[in-house]
Order: sequence, then C-alpha cells, then structure tokens
Amino acid sequence: MKTKVGLLGFGRTGKNVANLILQDQNYQLEWVFRKSKVLEKRSVPDFFGIQSEEPGHIYSAKTTSIDFLLDAYPVEFIIDFSAPEVLHTYAYEAAKRNVKIISAISHYSESEINLLHDLSADNVIFWSPNITLGVNFLLLASKYLKEIAPSADIEIIEEHFKKKSGISGTALKIAESLHIGKSNVLSVRAGGIVGKHEIIFGFPYQTVRLTHESISREAFGNGALFVAQELKDKIAGFYTFEDLLLPYFSKKSITK
Amino acid sequence: MKTKVGLLGFGRTGKNVANLILQDQNYQLEWVFRKSKVLEKRSVPDFFGIQSEEPGHIYSAKTTSIDFLLDAYPVEFIIDFSAPEVLHTYAYEAAKRNVKIISAISHYSESEINLLHDLSADNVIFWSPNITLGVNFLLLASKYLKEIAPSADIEIIEEHFKKKSGISGTALKIAESLHIGKSNVLSVRAGGIVGKHEIIFGFPYQTVRLTHESISREAFGNGALFVAQELKDKIAGFYTFEDLLLPYFSKKSITK
Amino acid sequence: MKTKVGLLGFGRTGKNVANLILQDQNYQLEWVFRKSKVLEKRSVPDFFGIQSEEPGHIYSAKTTSIDFLLDAYPVEFIIDFSAPEVLHTYAYEAAKRNVKIISAISHYSESEINLLHDLSADNVIFWSPNITLGVNFLLLASKYLKEIAPSADIEIIEEHFKKKSGISGTALKIAESLHIGKSNVLSVRAGGIVGKHEIIFGFPYQTVRLTHESISREAFGNGALFVAQELKDKIAGFYTFEDLLLPYFSKKSITK
Amino acid sequence: MKTKVGLLGFGRTGKNVANLILQDQNYQLEWVFRKSKVLEKRSVPDFFGIQSEEPGHIYSAKTTSIDFLLDAYPVEFIIDFSAPEVLHTYAYEAAKRNVKIISAISHYSESEINLLHDLSADNVIFWSPNITLGVNFLLLASKYLKEIAPSADIEIIEEHFKKKSGISGTALKIAESLHIGKSNVLSVRAGGIVGKHEIIFGFPYQTVRLTHESISREAFGNGALFVAQELKDKIAGFYTFEDLLLPYFSKKSITK
Repeated sequence: MKTKVGLLGFGRTGKNVANLILQDQNYQLEWVFRKSKVLEKRSVPDFFGIQSEEPGHIYSAKTTSIDFLLDAYPVEFIIDFSAPEVLHTYAYEAAKRNVKIISAISHYSESEINLLHDLSADNVIFWSPNITLGVNFLLLASKYLKEIAPSADIEIIEEHFKKKSGISGTALKIAESLHIGKSNVLSVRAGGIVGKHEIIFGFPYQTVRLTHESISREAFGNGALFVAQELKDKIAGFYTFEDLLLPYFSKKSITK
Repeated sequence: MKTKVGLLGFGRTGKNVANLILQDQNYQLEWVFRKSKVLEKRSVPDFFGIQSEEPGHIYSAKTTSIDFLLDAYPVEFIIDFSAPEVLHTYAYEAAKRNVKIISAISHYSESEINLLHDLSADNVIFWSPNITLGVNFLLLASKYLKEIAPSADIEIIEEHFKKKSGISGTALKIAESLHIGKSNVLSVRAGGIVGKHEIIFGFPYQTVRLTHESISREAFGNGALFVAQELKDKIAGFYTFEDLLLPYFSKKSITK
Repeated sequence: MKTKVGLLGFGRTGKNVANLILQDQNYQLEWVFRKSKVLEKRSVPDFFGIQSEEPGHIYSAKTTSIDFLLDAYPVEFIIDFSAPEVLHTYAYEAAKRNVKIISAISHYSESEINLLHDLSADNVIFWSPNITLGVNFLLLASKYLKEIAPSADIEIIEEHFKKKSGISGTALKIAESLHIGKSNVLSVRAGGIVGKHEIIFGFPYQTVRLTHESISREAFGNGALFVAQELKDKIAGFYTFEDLLLPYFSKKSITK
Repeated sequence: MKTKVGLLGFGRTGKNVANLILQDQNYQLEWVFRKSKVLEKRSVPDFFGIQSEEPGHIYSAKTTSIDFLLDAYPVEFIIDFSAPEVLHTYAYEAAKRNVKIISAISHYSESEINLLHDLSADNVIFWSPNITLGVNFLLLASKYLKEIAPSADIEIIEEHFKKKSGISGTALKIAESLHIGKSNVLSVRAGGIVGKHEIIFGFPYQTVRLTHESISREAFGNGALFVAQELKDKIAGFYTFEDLLLPYFSKKSITK
C-alpha cells in the first residue's frame, strides 16, 4: 500500500514536488494545502494533465482548516515547501495526530526552529534547508576529505542563472561546514544555468572535484521522498539530512 | 627528528617519488636501492641539482646487498616503486629488522601477495596498486554514494595520454568495487593528458560527478608519505589504502 | 511591429518552441498547425496559462487546410518541428505565398531534401537537423581548430538521459564533419541529463575542450528565432546553419 | 633540412622550450643564449640527458657577444623567452642579418614595442605575450561567439596553483578582448593546478564552455614552433598570434 503524503505549498517548487510524488509508486499525494485560493478544489493529476487515481485535491487555507484535512484525509507525512511562518499553522495539529513532518524551508527564524525541536520530543521531525540528496552527499563527503587532508586548498564554484542574486545558500552552507571563508566561494551568473556546485580540493600534484548539477526542481521531490523512506521506522527525534546519511558512512556497510 | 625512508626503484615514477621525499620536512631519504648500476653511488639531491643535507645515495643490487644497506643505514620504512619480483629480494630482510613495508606495485602475482600476508603476522605491511590519496578517496566516497542511492546510473570516464594502451587499471578497480561492468568505463586517449578519472552518478533530476585529476607523478610520493604517517603507530597487520581511510569516515570525526 | 510566425508541430519540442516564441518581443505566434485534433481551437497562451495578446490558436490538419490558414492569417515564417512527411503538405502552399520556411526536422528522406532544394530557387529555405546556436557554433569552431592543428587527437563525449538509445545524432554529425570515426565518440547514459556534448582536442602539453550543455528544449526555439532574424533580408536560396554563421567568422567583424 | 633556431633565456620556461625543440624533427636548437654564466658551454642535450646530434650549446652574455654567435652559428629564427630588456641587446643585430624574431615576453614597455614595430618594416617580427596555440584559439573563437550572440552572459574562470598572485594575465586579456569587466573573471587558487581557463557563455536554455588546460610549460615551445612554421614564408611585418590564426577562419578552408 502506498504511503500517504500531504504537501504544503504549491508555488514553482511545490508544483514540481507534487508532480514527482504523483509519479512515485510508493507514495500517494493525498492532498495539497496552500494559502492562495487559486486552483482550489482542482485535482493535481488533472492540473498536470496526467492520468492518475490519486486524489490529490488542492485545498486553500482560506476556506479549509488543517484540522479538518488531517482528520478527513489522514496522512503519514506532511512535506512542507511553503513558507517559514506556515509552520505555526499546522505543526501542533500534525504532531497531535503523529504525522511526521518533513520541512524543506530555507530560512526559519528561531521561533520556528524552537517549535520543531519542542515537537521532536514526541514526534519524528525533519528539517533541511537543502533537501537534494546530491548536495547533502557532497556536503558530507567533502567534510571527510577535509578530515583526511586538512592542508588541501578548498575553493567552491557555484553557477546559477543570471538573475539569481547573492551567493547561493547551499554554497555558503558548504563553505561554513568546511570552515572556509566567503572569499573562497566564487559565483558564476550566466544565462539559465539551473544550479551547479563544484567543491575543488587542490593538492600539490592532484586535484579532486566534487560536483553537483541540478537538472530541475523535481530533485527536491526526490530528496523529500528519500527522507520519507529513511524516516519510516525512526523513533521520535529531530533529524537533519546529515543524520540520515551518516549511518551509510560506516565500515560495515562498505567492506565486502 | 625526520623519519628515515629507503626507496626501491628509480625509474620515472621512482625519481618523482624521491624528489618529493627530499622536499618533505618530516621524512629523510636515506637511500635508493635499484637494480641497474646506472647512477650508482650518486647522491639523489645532487642528481636533481637540489641543495640538501639528506644522504640519499643510490645503490645497485648488482654490487650492494640489501642486508648490508639495512644494517649500515637503518630505516623505518621501505617504499617500493620497483617491480613485482623485487619483493622476494628484500621482504624477509626488512621484516627481520622490523622495517615497515609500503608497496605501490600494481601487478603482484599470488606468490607476492601471499608473502606480504605471511609477513604481516608480525610486521606492518601495506600494499595498494594505486597510492594516490585522491583516487582512494574517490573509490570510497563513490562506494558510499552507491550505498545511499543504489538505483543511480553510474558511468566512469577515464582520460589519459594518447599512447596509454588498455583501460586504466584504476578505472577498472573503481568499476569492480562499484559492481559495474567494463562497458560503463569510457576511455579517452588524447594528447598528453596525465590522468583524469570521473565517476558520474546520474539521478533523474540531478547529476553528481566525483573527479580526480593527476598533475604529475609526484602525487604517488605524496600518497606514500601519507601512508607512512598513518602507519607510524599501527600494530602488525596487512593494510590497504581503504583500511587507512575508513576510520576517517566515522561519525565522531565529522559532527561538531 | 512583430514578425508573424506559424508553427508546425505541437509535440514535446513544439510546445517548448511555442512557449519561447510567445515570450519573444520581436515575434508573434500567429498560429500552431498540427495533425492531431487534441487541443484544437485552444489558444496557446491560454494553454500555458500566460497572459498574452498574441492570437496563437491551435488548428488541426484534420479540420483546417493550410491554404485557408495561410490566407486568413498570413505569416512571414513557417517554423517546422513536426514530422518529415509533413513537408509535402505545406511546402508548395507556403512557397506560393513567399512564406520563408525554417525546418528543424532531423531525418528527411531524399524526396523532402529535393523538394526543399527545388523550392529554394525562388524562396528562402532553411534546413538544419540541429537548430541550437551553441551546437552549430561548436561544429564550426572545432572544424577551424582542426584546420589549425590537424595532428591534435580528437575525442567526443556525449552525455544524455539513461533511456536515450543509440549515439546522439549531433555527436555523429560533429564526428563526421571532423572526419573522425565512431569509435572516438563516447556515450554516457545516466539519469536525466538533458544533453551535453564535449569535443576534446588533445595536444602534447595542453588540452582544449569545447562543450555544449542543453538546459531545456526551449533552446530549439531560440535557435529558430536566431535563424529567422538572419534570414529576414536574405535572397532566395537554400540555407544551413553553417551558411548563417560563416559570415561572422571573417576578419572584418573581429579585429578592432 | 632542419630549420635552425637560437633560444634566448634558459629559466624554467626556457628549459622546457629547449627540451621541446630538441625533440622536434623539423627544428634544430643551434644555441641557447642567456645572461647567467651558470651552465655555460654545456650542451643542452647533455644537460637533459638526451642523445642528440644537435649542437645546442649554452652561451652567456657575460662572455660571448650576440654578434659573434649570429655569425659563427647562423639561425633563421630567434625565439625569445628571456626578459623584456634583453630585446635591446639583440634585436638590431638579428634584424641586420634577416633573422626572424619570435618574442614570447609578457610585459614589454613602450620602448620595446616601438623597437619591434620599427624593425618590422624590413623584418619578420612576431610578438605574443601568451604563445600557446590553445589559448589563442580560444581568444579568437570566443570573440566570434560574442559577435554571433552579443547578448550571452560571459564569465571567465581561471584556475592556477595556490601561490600564483594576481589574476592571470591571459584571463585579463580574454576579458579585455571580449569587453567584459574584471568582476567577471573568477580566480581559483588551489594546490598545484598548472593552468586552466574556462570561458562560459550563458544562454537562456543552453551553456557553451570553451576550456583550455595547460599540462606543462612545453606548450610554450610547441606554440613557438607553430609560429615559426607560420612565419616561414611571410613577408616583412609585425605579426601577432591572431594574425596567424585569422586566415584559418575563412570560408574557403572549411566548407567541403
């Protein structure tokens, strides 16, 4: 039986994530909950012009309460791609019903982070500002390489579409976790590049490059479902992407 | 005080390794032992035109015995970049004197591998056909990524100078350790490319590339000294590069 | 005033091209003509959910004749992203009315190629199996580099999504135009890579790489509009992408 | 018969260039002329430990005059990899004897540039601050692409060894010739990277990358010999690398 999922947010990324969940054989998009009334009551499969038996109707916070939704159409996971402040409107209700929360919101203030930690005492709570598998793998692999070769020179090149302003948050997070400065993060802004991150480790006689290239925003959906899979049998607690990946980096899993 | 090292082999790679050891502040090139009588009794620093106080004289197996050398000029490590069969001429003598052996020979037959394992009962023995840090990191990191994402498509591109014949041994080893076939290893042969290995992990909406570029053969020397550093306090046993890297891939070393 | 354009074909690529034309300030999507009756009479802007004053209605060959369309809604260009045999259904009618033809069909048989050449006596006719600007630039630039350095080793790497079967037609065309064999074209098939072509020129002490990365199919639309721009003031004749680019590769345009 | 060449300068680059000329079947290294007395009278083949019948002795300006050298051992080309001010010590003498000058000096002041232009009235004079074939091809190819697609976003990434200070002169020259600002040149400094230049052209739906990777300094020698080949039948004049490449970028040479 498919695992039922409710999605918060139906902006550009939310739409891509919804599309991805619809195509996954292990997950069922039970509903989408959004602020706006645009597209209200439309079915998501219909919106994408896809044949699907999944219900996936769109509800607006303006006319429907999250309590009602969680009771009428129960889910195992809420995946949140909406906005920071939305957390306060659903987190208690979800926790009360033991719904696991997967949040991919980039910029939470302290109040949201505290709320997540509070709820994690009795619930499975996940939060990661970047929820793609590839980027999180790179983050961890590069930390290990730095442990192994602390004297290597590290530089980060991030490439994005021309209109993206500021340094990419992902690049900054990588830099921070490797304890290197902003001046070692180089930003290319050109045309329509979806997103590329390259971590360069310079050695005297060799160079190692760890590169992640985004093809489309559906990667976020893939990441969210990977997270859901990992959280399925976890006990209550606060989880990050790193927490989910670390067990893979252990001797037993790798040696023949 | 510098750690004393004896080097076996003084071919193209051996020369580069010797040059590298000479420049390292923690290691002293005590002597070079080679088959040929060419350059016999010359000092290595002099050969390279470098000012150095390290002795580093070149001895030939034709006129000097390894017993004599090991007694007259004791070393903590023997680093072997010579040829497979050479192992039989020095391994017992080295083991008898508790000299640690670091072998970077690519193609040992069973008899040499058995010998190494026998000696490892009482001695620190290391063997790795590819002794660069970067390649071995890639090997391990890609294994972990495959554990995390078993359904990703994996392809390997290796690039080398035009005259290199056959698929690169390193690429084959990576393919083997990832359980992918030879048909997924693509070989570029062009001009004077020193050596590049790229492991591509293809996901539906993102691509991860792990790349190693060789700049020069001195990288082998760097790898050998990294190994020496790691072996310094190890107990008797048979070690591979993977054995030395695995402890770095553990939770404690990485989480703040 | 905007230049009026009619589009043939509304499959996956056709849709992307239509979307691109809608967003261009110099071109007006006058209509789309397709075989299927699906979406008939719908307006393209409406289909994409875009606010636009451009008419862009969809007509089906099953209920509307191309004669009627060309008379009722005259255009300066027909851009053809449909199928090879479709050419016979519109080419004479278009030529009779002096409509310029831009065809991006990959695989024409001799009969279509002959037809195009016949019509080019009195009309502006363009045909290119790959209509992206970047790929055609690479094709030409690599030819020049081969002229300059005939002894360089050339290898081509093409990367595409896992399910793409066969070697990419673009890679084969590059190989053919550089007179190198199929064995020098390496194909990576992994995940969802949209399309990447890399031409490697190997020299003894340096390497040149000319790389093209596709982000999305809209690139075809951009290419078609570049072609339209170039053809605007051309006299009757048969044009390829190479014909349009060659004038740029001339001394006068480049030296200060 | 081999073309005779005299080399000025025997520093790190000069040595690599000498080595390259020795290995070329069409050119004979007649002599090396340098400021320092170190290695005076040594033969270059002997210095490199190469078997060669080429004379290639090393002369010092401190004990030998260029007049004597040019008369005693006449050459067709002088290749200059020494220092800016050296030009004044040999240019007139060379010109008087119709020796063609190939200068690869990076930073000439106005007085040297004027001197070169004066001599070019009656002599074949070549000057290029970067004399590798690949970089000069990239320079020109990228100019053409900018002509073709003036609205593309252009960014340049240059990568060099950690200790290289300042932005690479080659990258600055590329930027200048494409009329883009310094802020679009990104510098990576890591480990022992020999030298990499990547020019990125960003389009809305595609990306073109023109990349040059240096493997070793011998590339300068290769470039100098390419230049010699091109200059062999040229009439008196002042030539740059661009002047030599431009004729290749013409319609006739490329269309079948």
